[in-house]
Amino acid sequence: MAFDAALQEIAEQAWEVMEAIGRRTGTPDTGITRACYGEGEQIAAEAVTEFAAGLGLTLEPDRYGNLHVLVPGAEPDAKVIMTGSHLDSVPGGGNYDGLAGAMAALSVAAAARRTGGHQRGIRAVAMRGEESPWFGTAYVGSRLMLGHSTLEEIGALRRIDSGVTLREHLDALGYADAPVLPISRGTVAGFFELHIEQGPLLIANNLPVAVATDCRGNIRYPEARCLGEYGHSAALPRAFRHDAVMAVAELALEFERFWEEVERRDPSAVFTMGKLGTDPAAHAMTKVPGEARFSFNFGSIREDVLAEADALLTRLLATIGQRRGVRFEMGPRFGSAPSHLDPGLAAAVEGAAQALGIGAMRLATVGHDAAMFHLAGIPASVMLVRNAHGSHNPQEAMERADFLLGTRVLGGAVMRAAA
Amino acid sequence: MAFDAALQEIAEQAWEVMEAIGRRTGTPDTGITRACYGEGEQIAAEAVTEFAAGLGLTLEPDRYGNLHVLVPGAEPDAKVIMTGSHLDSVPGGGNYDGLAGAMAALSVAAAARRTGGHQRGIRAVAMRGEESPWFGTAYVGSRLMLGHSTLEEIGALRRIDSGVTLREHLDALGYADAPVLPISRGTVAGFFELHIEQGPLLIANNLPVAVATDCRGNIRYPEARCLGEYGHSAALPRAFRHDAVMAVAELALEFERFWEEVERRDPSAVFTMGKLGTDPAAHAMTKVPGEARFSFNFGSIREDVLAEADALLTRLLATIGQRRGVRFEMGPRFGSAPSHLDPGLAAAVEGAAQALGIGAMRLATVGHDAAMFHLAGIPASVMLVRNAHGSHNPQEAMERADFLLGTRVLGGAVMRAAA
Repeated sequence: MAFDAALQEIAEQAWEVMEAIGRRTGTPDTGITRACYGEGEQIAAEAVTEFAAGLGLTLEPDRYGNLHVLVPGAEPDAKVIMTGSHLDSVPGGGNYDGLAGAMAALSVAAAARRTGGHQRGIRAVAMRGEESPWFGTAYVGSRLMLGHSTLEEIGALRRIDSGVTLREHLDALGYADAPVLPISRGTVAGFFELHIEQGPLLIANNLPVAVATDCRGNIRYPEARCLGEYGHSAALPRAFRHDAVMAVAELALEFERFWEEVERRDPSAVFTMGKLGTDPAAHAMTKVPGEARFSFNFGSIREDVLAEADALLTRLLATIGQRRGVRFEMGPRFGSAPSHLDPGLAAAVEGAAQALGIGAMRLATVGHDAAMFHLAGIPASVMLVRNAHGSHNPQEAMERADFLLGTRVLGGAVMRAAA
Repeated sequence: MAFDAALQEIAEQAWEVMEAIGRRTGTPDTGITRACYGEGEQIAAEAVTEFAAGLGLTLEPDRYGNLHVLVPGAEPDAKVIMTGSHLDSVPGGGNYDGLAGAMAALSVAAAARRTGGHQRGIRAVAMRGEESPWFGTAYVGSRLMLGHSTLEEIGALRRIDSGVTLREHLDALGYADAPVLPISRGTVAGFFELHIEQGPLLIANNLPVAVATDCRGNIRYPEARCLGEYGHSAALPRAFRHDAVMAVAELALEFERFWEEVERRDPSAVFTMGKLGTDPAAHAMTKVPGEARFSFNFGSIREDVLAEADALLTRLLATIGQRRGVRFEMGPRFGSAPSHLDPGLAAAVEGAAQALGIGAMRLATVGHDAAMFHLAGIPASVMLVRNAHGSHNPQEAMERADFLLGTRVLGGAVMRAAA
């Protein structure tokens, strides 16, 4: 087990680098902020480049700022095995969502370079902009890299905080002349992503890792509005009101009720109204609220449940709108279909865990960069590492021991696939 | 009817002045903004002073910036009859809420001065800061004038938009040396306030004016919060969530249900959650919302219904809090007891309307400056004038003919009381 010993040693260094990146891109109170192509993500990009260089790996950016290294295998013409995850975070998020998978991937590549013996080349990648708050859409780096979107299509999107376009961000970072790499099902035999669980189920089941079976698809409206009519809070009888807050509250609770019913047959279903707000320029305690903005986000691994949710949403918008005399403007729709992950790669992860004497469970997971690989016809697999307090918040936490174990499982799976 | 003829002519001028003030303190799109002691209210104060001067009335400020004029009656030692309303508006409100009553009061005083014949003196007043958004509390001008609060008690309140204290605003406007007037039940026999209805019931009943029977009391929390826990929107199963938006939505709909039940026995009951918002610095479509801020505002003319609402609120905060694992911090509580308006003055208003051949109806109304007079033991009356689109919004509208009729009814009532 020379590979595993080398990997363990490298992963210990990777943990320290990851902790240092965390200290440089956030505080315990306010959390981690690594905006896509922003200061925090760039700090992480430079730190992982330096980490890799110390291990003899030269990271090279592609046209979209994703950082790559290829450790060649014995068969130079064979499709490669890829592994990686993303460097960005949500605003005020945690340190491990994304970064742990990028650090683990680079560790695996470095260990493979040191001990060799694999037939397929191993390509590690640290990707950009997986989180949706930056450009209003997720998977920016992997989506562009895999050709699901082009710069012509999405280069003019503006980053919500900076107001600067995606293309301008890339140009400012000097990626305009970086190569577009041929990452496709013609060149990649499989993609493995290590990611924190982001949920509480591994802790609840006292297990360090899980194998994801499917990535949830979802129905997302990031900028929906309900338009009613402002009025005097005391003088306006109930029958005369067009109250936007009450209408959105009803929509939220009706969907929660649906979720409660559907989760018995589909435990992967989730529903969240993460953003909600009346208009600070017009609202008052003494005014019936005439407008409320909100986000809508329903997810499931099952196409039929997503279709049910879609039909319910259409029905509720009509009935609530009519009964309350309000109008819903749902705005742009984002979202994706569920990804059913590759059973062969999942078996490789389970085999690697078993070989290390580690129990694992099977779980649905949320959308990750792996979903973009799946969508490109590349067999994809996600393994989840236990973490406390969920993710997308400052309290997100991972045990060093779990990161080391998870990285060894990832390494074992990659080496099995590359053998 | 020399008085009524004079009043009609003066009210026609008052309408023009009122429209001009509207044009100078807002736009049709954004509505009227006359902040308490701010630019808009000051424009109104100067315009009404000029209007009164043109009619031979010298308006004098009191210590709190309320503008007064006394038209002496034949019995100089008798208690006076007062009439007036406020000059401020909510942010983005309408032109008539408050201002119409001040203009009508000045018109009545001017007509009385011209034609005379009253025994009691008639004191007209244009008051300040009746609306709560400015200092977070309502009735600033009338409350100070009537001694319910002192400058020592509330002078350090900061205006929410300017951050400047109430006392500093008064000093800046030069009112530090203005007199504190002896307005009390020892000096005032009755107070009449003309006010727009702010609701749709007069239009629905095709009547120009109403006599208010009671001012609603209320339970108000302008800055309440619900604290849950942020988490990943997709990875966190329902049972593990502490979703602040869902908790506040449930509170809102439970109170709406209570309202629906209670309005059958108390048509005056009203409930509004006018402000609601997740934290823009922390929320995201992809995060379970860990915090939501909201305002809570329940009103009724009935003490028993207010007590029921209070008990329900306590119960819901506990049960929702426990079931969802969230915590409510309701913040400072404001509100007031219901005011049961004076039947004798109401009869004077009804008599005046009848004498002019105008039908009127009886209605509950919201809190007005009149409530402060009632609280001081001064018989108080509110008459409501038909208006479209409610108030506290840019679409608030009043017909010129309704203003003229309403002012004539007010004048008739004041003259009956002062006879």
